[in-house]
Amino acid sequence: MSLFVQNQWYVAAYGADVGRDLFSRTVCGESILFWRTEGGVVTAMSDRCVHRRFPLSQSPSHLLGDTVVCGYHGFTYGADGVCVGVPGQARVPRTARLTAYPVVEQDSFVWVWIGDPSGAEATAIPRAPWLDDEGYTTVCGMEPLAARAGLLVDNLLDLSHETYLHGGYIGTPEVANTPITTEVDEEGGIIYVSRHMDDADCPPFYAKSTGIQGRITRWQDIEYLPPCLYLLHSRVAPTGVLPLGDGTDPGGFHVEVVYAVTPETENSTHDFWAVARDFALGDEGVSDFLRESNRTVVLQDVVALDVLEKVIASEPAGYQELSINIDTGALAARRILERMAQDGATAMEAAAR
Amino acid sequence: MSLFVQNQWYVAAYGADVGRDLFSRTVCGESILFWRTEGGVVTAMSDRCVHRRFPLSQSPSHLLGDTVVCGYHGFTYGADGVCVGVPGQARVPRTARLTAYPVVEQDSFVWVWIGDPSGAEATAIPRAPWLDDEGYTTVCGMEPLAARAGLLVDNLLDLSHETYLHGGYIGTPEVANTPITTEVDEEGGIIYVSRHMDDADCPPFYAKSTGIQGRITRWQDIEYLPPCLYLLHSRVAPTGVLPLGDGTDPGGFHVEVVYAVTPETENSTHDFWAVARDFALGDEGVSDFLRESNRTVVLQDVVALDVLEKVIASEPAGYQELSINIDTGALAARRILERMAQDGATAMEAAAR
Amino acid sequence: MSLFVQNQWYVAAYGADVGRDLFSRTVCGESILFWRTEGGVVTAMSDRCVHRRFPLSQSPSHLLGDTVVCGYHGFTYGADGVCVGVPGQARVPRTARLTAYPVVEQDSFVWVWIGDPSGAEATAIPRAPWLDDEGYTTVCGMEPLAARAGLLVDNLLDLSHETYLHGGYIGTPEVANTPITTEVDEEGGIIYVSRHMDDADCPPFYAKSTGIQGRITRWQDIEYLPPCLYLLHSRVAPTGVLPLGDGTDPGGFHVEVVYAVTPETENSTHDFWAVARDFALGDEGVSDFLRESNRTVVLQDVVALDVLEKVIASEPAGYQELSINIDTGALAARRILERMAQDGATAMEAAAR
Repeated sequence: MSLFVQNQWYVAAYGADVGRDLFSRTVCGESILFWRTEGGVVTAMSDRCVHRRFPLSQSPSHLLGDTVVCGYHGFTYGADGVCVGVPGQARVPRTARLTAYPVVEQDSFVWVWIGDPSGAEATAIPRAPWLDDEGYTTVCGMEPLAARAGLLVDNLLDLSHETYLHGGYIGTPEVANTPITTEVDEEGGIIYVSRHMDDADCPPFYAKSTGIQGRITRWQDIEYLPPCLYLLHSRVAPTGVLPLGDGTDPGGFHVEVVYAVTPETENSTHDFWAVARDFALGDEGVSDFLRESNRTVVLQDVVALDVLEKVIASEPAGYQELSINIDTGALAARRILERMAQDGATAMEAAAR
Repeated sequence: MSLFVQNQWYVAAYGADVGRDLFSRTVCGESILFWRTEGGVVTAMSDRCVHRRFPLSQSPSHLLGDTVVCGYHGFTYGADGVCVGVPGQARVPRTARLTAYPVVEQDSFVWVWIGDPSGAEATAIPRAPWLDDEGYTTVCGMEPLAARAGLLVDNLLDLSHETYLHGGYIGTPEVANTPITTEVDEEGGIIYVSRHMDDADCPPFYAKSTGIQGRITRWQDIEYLPPCLYLLHSRVAPTGVLPLGDGTDPGGFHVEVVYAVTPETENSTHDFWAVARDFALGDEGVSDFLRESNRTVVLQDVVALDVLEKVIASEPAGYQELSINIDTGALAARRILERMAQDGATAMEAAAR
Repeated sequence: MSLFVQNQWYVAAYGADVGRDLFSRTVCGESILFWRTEGGVVTAMSDRCVHRRFPLSQSPSHLLGDTVVCGYHGFTYGADGVCVGVPGQARVPRTARLTAYPVVEQDSFVWVWIGDPSGAEATAIPRAPWLDDEGYTTVCGMEPLAARAGLLVDNLLDLSHETYLHGGYIGTPEVANTPITTEVDEEGGIIYVSRHMDDADCPPFYAKSTGIQGRITRWQDIEYLPPCLYLLHSRVAPTGVLPLGDGTDPGGFHVEVVYAVTPETENSTHDFWAVARDFALGDEGVSDFLRESNRTVVLQDVVALDVLEKVIASEPAGYQELSINIDTGALAARRILERMAQDGATAMEAAAR
């Protein structure tokens, strides 16, 4: 059974990362080559020449029109991964083709399908529409994590850590002190964790970007769509300012914090993060501040999670954690990820038969 | 069976290393957190939060009075390792406690007990009283060794290597050429190795520190108290100057060279060293010279032993060494360490039942 | 069964590498010490003291006349590896001797025999006579490869890669486009691969060194004598200029490109290369150019093969390559190397009985 959840869409890159340079990314242990055709379409295929496994992303491999030429012996492949030329002979072996991956650009991300390709089309790709919505301004990035994806999922589903690990940025005492409510949509495989603080300190992240002075009402509504997409619907407003009866919310500031948790290997993860806001839309100063602040916060997580990965590597087998109420969402996520992994493995075995 | 000798006291640090900063040290594969209470007492507890294993020595974890606060989610522990606070709820789970280690300050060292804590009190901690005796002046340090502890024990019990590895510092031809006598106290588990040179070159280490000119009588009397403490009672005097009949020794210069051999992991070791002398007591120049000289000598050992560890890592299984007379002490040490390891394992199994 | 082909001669060094400094090289996983006696004879013995495995090449080990003194405890060995002195006692144990390796200087190389020494003398060492022939001028070097030897054998037996990996140095389109002929001497265990280009671009490597302007006749005749020696007989001449009927070839330029492929460990290789030419014999400018050019080409291979080794390390078990006509020689080499490995293992087992 694979270490990764199969038959799922994963974020491999931002659309802006993929152009006419050969771009390689390992997703769920698979080395995948991405490039954009002259017509602008993103392609995804195995980053290993079928001949002697040379990486097609490795110089002097290069694009020639809508083909990629291997830098070792010149095997040449089209946008569908089929080999169209080999050295020293006219005939191209029929089996010379790279594994092609279903790939879709959506919401500024490049999504790639890992698993049996026949299931890709019927499986909806989860949405993060704010990231290319005109009504929002977005800053984003990706930090490589030398830790397993599960540690990042734990981290994101238990925001009480903001108070300790991210104090001075996004954490205040109220985050750790306010109890959460957790709901799990077992059928849909979605985890919801909410923490509504009625009267809280305003951390610098929100004070400087919104201009609110004084205490705030602060809502954190998490929606995790395993395995890859994590949404934090964040609402802040001066204390007592609530949405109107008609559902509109002119007095609130909304930030959609989006993470994509993409396993690279068993012990490393691509930590994509984006912060979309519905205020100060054209304000570059606010964008710069939020980009810098969120990157700092993510890097604080990276340091902590990389340490945890090393701790796990050196600990005796059978080590037991202790969980409390704040872990309800993370424990539900582990359970659903395990079930998805099992389902994916079963489907892959059936497909292999 | 553990790789390490269980149910034993080990030197974890100098007392001066442990204060109001969180101090972590791995002893026999166990990550241990040390800090000093506001009342000045050294504490020792597991350096892993019971919640999500975050190291309590890792920033932003910090001391708050006589408690330590985890930098990830704020779990808070007292000096006895018992958890006194968790985020988001008033109730602290009953099982939330860190492993506490018996710990004692003695002879300038912080000694920690590895194994079943119930045996700690009844087990005497071996002594190195010169290290905080007013009649002696001591210089000391610790060098990390990327080699298993056994290689350092081999090294220290066979000082013939001084002639070759430490020539120009503490080695002279007579060390390698003079036969040793070895005695083993099987019951007490102590190994004695002596080499008395009646007429030897005086190496710079002793010439510069004592001021003796010309040849010397040089005695090396080793006492190894496995697993951790090694004492080299060293006496030098001008050739022919011996202790008096009444046991006093006004013509001799005495240096107590103390090593503590503390396994960090299976393949790395904390190499504590101290040099206590009964002459030139207040002379900073002599202190500086002996500190620098002994550190140089220890680093020569470190280079050699680190190489040996790499050699072992790459050698075929079943490699056989060849031993000669000079190895009698080291072979006895290996035998006693093996027996202690077996005894410790048996006791740990019994305690676990 | 050993990972390496046993009972074979391997190039360990150039003769010029071995003098009165202790020189260590790992060949087929065995750490071997080389030094030259006062009489100028190259010796080869295990680079591990029999006492406590200290490397005899490691400072402060040193030569004393025709003996080598271990830098740890002073064990002393003669040129035949037999121990002649130990510390603290007059008697030298009878079994104290280092493994001695059959070693021969030939064609500027130091060849060492790996396996059962009794077979060494009867086994002819393959020849590369041009390397110290007065009729040739040679440039040479050695680059360490962090890749298994098999990847270098693959590389050298399929020169179509020159067009892609070494374009601008030795590759032109004709190399990849011209079909090869392959012959295998199964009995003698030699692989021949030839590519004769009648009308080809002249790459800078040959244009600048020979002075030919315009297109060339270019012959590549490979002779691989597994496991270690690879010869590329290269002939270039202006297009249409061929050897005479009497076998002489006054109009051709001849370059003997010699590689020795010596496994260091399972995953690393000593990549010895030499370029011997029969023209511009005393011309330092040509020597400098060819040395620099060939080293650049070898380093391009090193980068590529080091990448392939990493690819193999991370790929799933059972990965399948796709081979085409250009791989005929390399596939034959793999088959013969496998047979030689089997033969060597069988002989070693018989010798051990």
